[in-house]
Amino acid sequence: MQSAKPKVLQTLAGKPLLGHVLTTCHHLAVDKTIVVHGFGGEQVQEHINANYGQLPIDWVAQTEQLGTGHAVKVTLSELPTEGQSLILYGDVPLVSAETLDSLQAANREGMSMLTLTVDNPFGLGRIKRDNEGRIVAIVEQKDASEEERSIQEINSGIYCVDNALLHKYLPKLSNDNAQEEYYLTDIVKMAVADGVVIAAIEPKDDFEIEGVNNRQQLASLERTWQGKMIHDLQVAGVQFADPARVDIRGSVSTGQDVFVDANVIFEGDCVLGDNVYIEAGCVIKHTTIGNACHLKPYCVIDHAHIEAGVTIGPFVNLRPDTHLAAHSRIGNFVEIKKSSIGEGSKVNHLSYIGDATVGAGVNVGAGVITCNYDGVNKSATHIEDNAFIGSNASLVAPVTIGHTATVAAGSVITKDVDANALAFGRARQVDKANYQRPSKRDNK
Amino acid sequence: MQSAKPKVLQTLAGKPLLGHVLTTCHHLAVDKTIVVHGFGGEQVQEHINANYGQLPIDWVAQTEQLGTGHAVKVTLSELPTEGQSLILYGDVPLVSAETLDSLQAANREGMSMLTLTVDNPFGLGRIKRDNEGRIVAIVEQKDASEEERSIQEINSGIYCVDNALLHKYLPKLSNDNAQEEYYLTDIVKMAVADGVVIAAIEPKDDFEIEGVNNRQQLASLERTWQGKMIHDLQVAGVQFADPARVDIRGSVSTGQDVFVDANVIFEGDCVLGDNVYIEAGCVIKHTTIGNACHLKPYCVIDHAHIEAGVTIGPFVNLRPDTHLAAHSRIGNFVEIKKSSIGEGSKVNHLSYIGDATVGAGVNVGAGVITCNYDGVNKSATHIEDNAFIGSNASLVAPVTIGHTATVAAGSVITKDVDANALAFGRARQVDKANYQRPSKRDNK
Amino acid sequence: MQSAKPKVLQTLAGKPLLGHVLTTCHHLAVDKTIVVHGFGGEQVQEHINANYGQLPIDWVAQTEQLGTGHAVKVTLSELPTEGQSLILYGDVPLVSAETLDSLQAANREGMSMLTLTVDNPFGLGRIKRDNEGRIVAIVEQKDASEEERSIQEINSGIYCVDNALLHKYLPKLSNDNAQEEYYLTDIVKMAVADGVVIAAIEPKDDFEIEGVNNRQQLASLERTWQGKMIHDLQVAGVQFADPARVDIRGSVSTGQDVFVDANVIFEGDCVLGDNVYIEAGCVIKHTTIGNACHLKPYCVIDHAHIEAGVTIGPFVNLRPDTHLAAHSRIGNFVEIKKSSIGEGSKVNHLSYIGDATVGAGVNVGAGVITCNYDGVNKSATHIEDNAFIGSNASLVAPVTIGHTATVAAGSVITKDVDANALAFGRARQVDKANYQRPSKRDNK
Repeated sequence: MQSAKPKVLQTLAGKPLLGHVLTTCHHLAVDKTIVVHGFGGEQVQEHINANYGQLPIDWVAQTEQLGTGHAVKVTLSELPTEGQSLILYGDVPLVSAETLDSLQAANREGMSMLTLTVDNPFGLGRIKRDNEGRIVAIVEQKDASEEERSIQEINSGIYCVDNALLHKYLPKLSNDNAQEEYYLTDIVKMAVADGVVIAAIEPKDDFEIEGVNNRQQLASLERTWQGKMIHDLQVAGVQFADPARVDIRGSVSTGQDVFVDANVIFEGDCVLGDNVYIEAGCVIKHTTIGNACHLKPYCVIDHAHIEAGVTIGPFVNLRPDTHLAAHSRIGNFVEIKKSSIGEGSKVNHLSYIGDATVGAGVNVGAGVITCNYDGVNKSATHIEDNAFIGSNASLVAPVTIGHTATVAAGSVITKDVDANALAFGRARQVDKANYQRPSKRDNK
Repeated sequence: MQSAKPKVLQTLAGKPLLGHVLTTCHHLAVDKTIVVHGFGGEQVQEHINANYGQLPIDWVAQTEQLGTGHAVKVTLSELPTEGQSLILYGDVPLVSAETLDSLQAANREGMSMLTLTVDNPFGLGRIKRDNEGRIVAIVEQKDASEEERSIQEINSGIYCVDNALLHKYLPKLSNDNAQEEYYLTDIVKMAVADGVVIAAIEPKDDFEIEGVNNRQQLASLERTWQGKMIHDLQVAGVQFADPARVDIRGSVSTGQDVFVDANVIFEGDCVLGDNVYIEAGCVIKHTTIGNACHLKPYCVIDHAHIEAGVTIGPFVNLRPDTHLAAHSRIGNFVEIKKSSIGEGSKVNHLSYIGDATVGAGVNVGAGVITCNYDGVNKSATHIEDNAFIGSNASLVAPVTIGHTATVAAGSVITKDVDANALAFGRARQVDKANYQRPSKRDNK
Repeated sequence: MQSAKPKVLQTLAGKPLLGHVLTTCHHLAVDKTIVVHGFGGEQVQEHINANYGQLPIDWVAQTEQLGTGHAVKVTLSELPTEGQSLILYGDVPLVSAETLDSLQAANREGMSMLTLTVDNPFGLGRIKRDNEGRIVAIVEQKDASEEERSIQEINSGIYCVDNALLHKYLPKLSNDNAQEEYYLTDIVKMAVADGVVIAAIEPKDDFEIEGVNNRQQLASLERTWQGKMIHDLQVAGVQFADPARVDIRGSVSTGQDVFVDANVIFEGDCVLGDNVYIEAGCVIKHTTIGNACHLKPYCVIDHAHIEAGVTIGPFVNLRPDTHLAAHSRIGNFVEIKKSSIGEGSKVNHLSYIGDATVGAGVNVGAGVITCNYDGVNKSATHIEDNAFIGSNASLVAPVTIGHTATVAAGSVITKDVDANALAFGRARQVDKANYQRPSKRDNK
């Protein structure tokens, strides 16, 4: 990975690899989650606790890296003696809850495992079965005979095992092999020797058992995952101009007849109503968008709530805590932060609206700025219904513009304006005839 | 499709599927176009009449969905008794005029059909031929023998048939089959029985006979079509940084040595001169761009006319009815609407120019705004040749700035400015020494 | 190509095809570079001399296009009699220095050549070898026997030949063939006849010997090359959200844990520190970015120097000669040109800063503009440490704002402001109660 970060904190679809696995465990409603950590364990704990605090985790340190069997063995003191355990990997992020549900259901005699039939099994542990189809061994590439190498069913390393068996087998693991490692696969051998019939199921999607060992594999799995999520949204009825040019880093739920143009990115949990039309290059994070909204190209939106029939863009930056009421209109080169814009109101050009409440039917002219910061404090601006704010006006907060009031273009407003009043703060225009323009300096 | 819209109104390359087929018919100069509609027929008629009003269409309702044969049969009352008909599908959008021309030319004995040889014919109707190569039947997958299943020539469903034959055969169609449907393919059987030699041709491109049944197929056909259009432009000499990252939703005609960077989108009819250089992420709709223009990244342009040697961007929004004369320059964060900018004039930063005429050699400073809207009316701004508009000036329309006039920075201009005059409207600067800045509020 | 430009000036990864080859020669530290030019030779010379002036080139005109052998033959008057020569092609741009180093090392008896084993050799010259594996001939497609056509090792046309042999063989080339051309491959025949054992090596990457004959091949090779460069950066530890959606036109060197989102474009030489986080759609040219910088979506940056911990964007345009000191912050819709921004200073919204020096700890409010141009001259603005510039202020250069000075919102500043002073230049606010708004015009 060539990284200062532990591998399990590398992100896929905006979430750490380990975060994917933990979220899946959370969906499965497991009783207890034990995470074994090695290198960088504190960094991992800190990050996971900060971001997945709702998941109670027992952290177990594996101070020496002595193999997969050893990694599971160090959990024994934390492991209940009853029930069953799923053995998962922090760098195999996309195993699904459905697959793990099936894996648990398949474990009837003490052990089930996830396998996959692949075209090219080279390098992977093969699943050897007897004539009745019962699993008898996992054979590693280097130990496999010619015939065994032709087996296409491979071991994913993911198991569901009765805790009783883990307590029985793990202490017996030996590192008496060329690598001097404790292999988890040896528990299969022990179970077979005990006459346990090991159930095997295949995952819903092949990518579920893919691990990540370098940046290329991470990027490849990222695109596979994006393809899967986009496909699911297509099945749900979303039209994508180009399914290969969208990113979903979180969840997107949509109404009917949503259109998403090229290079849109979603982050966090986003909700889109019916007939939402999103043009190219929008970046939408943690946002709810109502029915029939139209996002023109290049809207950047974070933690906003947008009601129905709103038109935005192009080139808009909606920062956290923006609320746009129905049928409002936000035009180009406008930034809104921690503000609400009322029904049918318009902020169409080159404005900064921060820490403001804007009523309904308001027209905010081009270049209007709410001066919400005096260098130390932030203050609020209130613009009441039907007010008209002329272009290039500066509203120095704290200030209130009353309903149906008018602010003249270019004014600096420092005092409240009464309802229905006209406020202006600008010098009279003076003209000088035959003005002599500056001449070109002699740039010596 | 999971849609409230009828399938034939779903869009491919920005145009409804049915719109593609109708446009092709229009190019073929057919005498009469009959469209059979079922579900959502009114919505279809309304949309098509609104957008393709120049194409006279006879609408025929198929009130029950009794199969493809039935769909054609319901047109009989509208169908002339002479001449020939092309039988097309509203959800097979990309059949080309060239292919249909060939199909018509191939119809010498009363019927011709479009077939395709494919690698995997599974599920498709096979074209059965006799030893002399004459078509003798179309065999559906479920009725096909082992041998017939190995036939790789399949039926597209697209025919050219003499109207006399349609009037003869369609009334005889029977729904005496498992599905209780009237199959159009039965007319092939009848023609063969009559000794008609049915001509078959293959389309120019395989995708021409692809139908659309879900969002995934729609997206896939969209990308295929984009690939075809980009390829055609490459052959014509356009350089694309990445042919997989461009979208053309309409037509693009170009001069020599045009460069198009990644993620450019064209909509409607666009014309590009020689040596046009378009950087990443530009969205260009219904626009003509002259020779040697340079569009920097992220220009959004709609219904504009841009003359030669113009430089635009980055981050520019040209709205409808923008005209940029030769060698003008539009810089970042500038919006122009319904305005003309004269030869060599510059609007370089953070401006809104609306309902304005700007002469030649004008310099519009940063942050200049034409205040064209008073809340109810839009008014015009005229800036004559060689005027200089200082930064942050507000021009309150209606207003005229005379030629070679100067407007001082920060001025609000409400009255016309004479030629050669200097106008300013701003307060004198006052300084207070040792100003005590605001202190941090105690946010209790 | 359908171009007014000679093929070797067409660009791949932002650099002319010939420029790639010349740069590779430069890396090899060759003693002498001879370029043979035909059509458009003056245009080629002019462009190459302007952009690759550091490479001494002997230009030789091939006035008639009489084949590859003839092209090399015309260099004889310039060719030393000792040493060896690499024979390369202006339209085979990506042959690597490593491969050419190996090719030179392989030339022990007078000649070595670059060959490649391909799946489909159709149309290409085959390498015929004798039983001992020695090259005996190059057989062209049209002259090849059935058996020879099955040979998969093909000729790239790239050779390393002793100059003595070139002086011996090239004068003997004959055009006594169907095409009446002088074939370079005939020197292989002559060498074999002389008993020279010709060494052959394969390139490191297959694409190294790909030539460019049309726009499609150019685009295809561009994407292959991009894939190679992205792959190399992945191996070095860069995380790409989508490796297929990045462009590198020049060089990128990076620290650890850099993240690059979709559709980022790099041009020229760019350097990124550790933990740089670049969001979607940024276009970065000739720029150095320090550790832990965060570029939000859609930053366009050209010839800037950005120190550590800086946050930029979204929608920022940094023009040449921008210097951002550590922990400064540039927000949305801000343009900076030929200016330095001091440590921890903020320019957060809708500003144009040009020809300015901004000290440390400065806050530049929304909509602030440095009025650096009076129509003929550019002037400088100096803002000293800890100054506060209120929103919508216009600073008319030349002007200096002293340290810890305050400029009130909406002011036009035309005179220097002393340290610690407050400057304002704006009219007093006047309110008129019960203002009668404009009424809708009768648009007859």
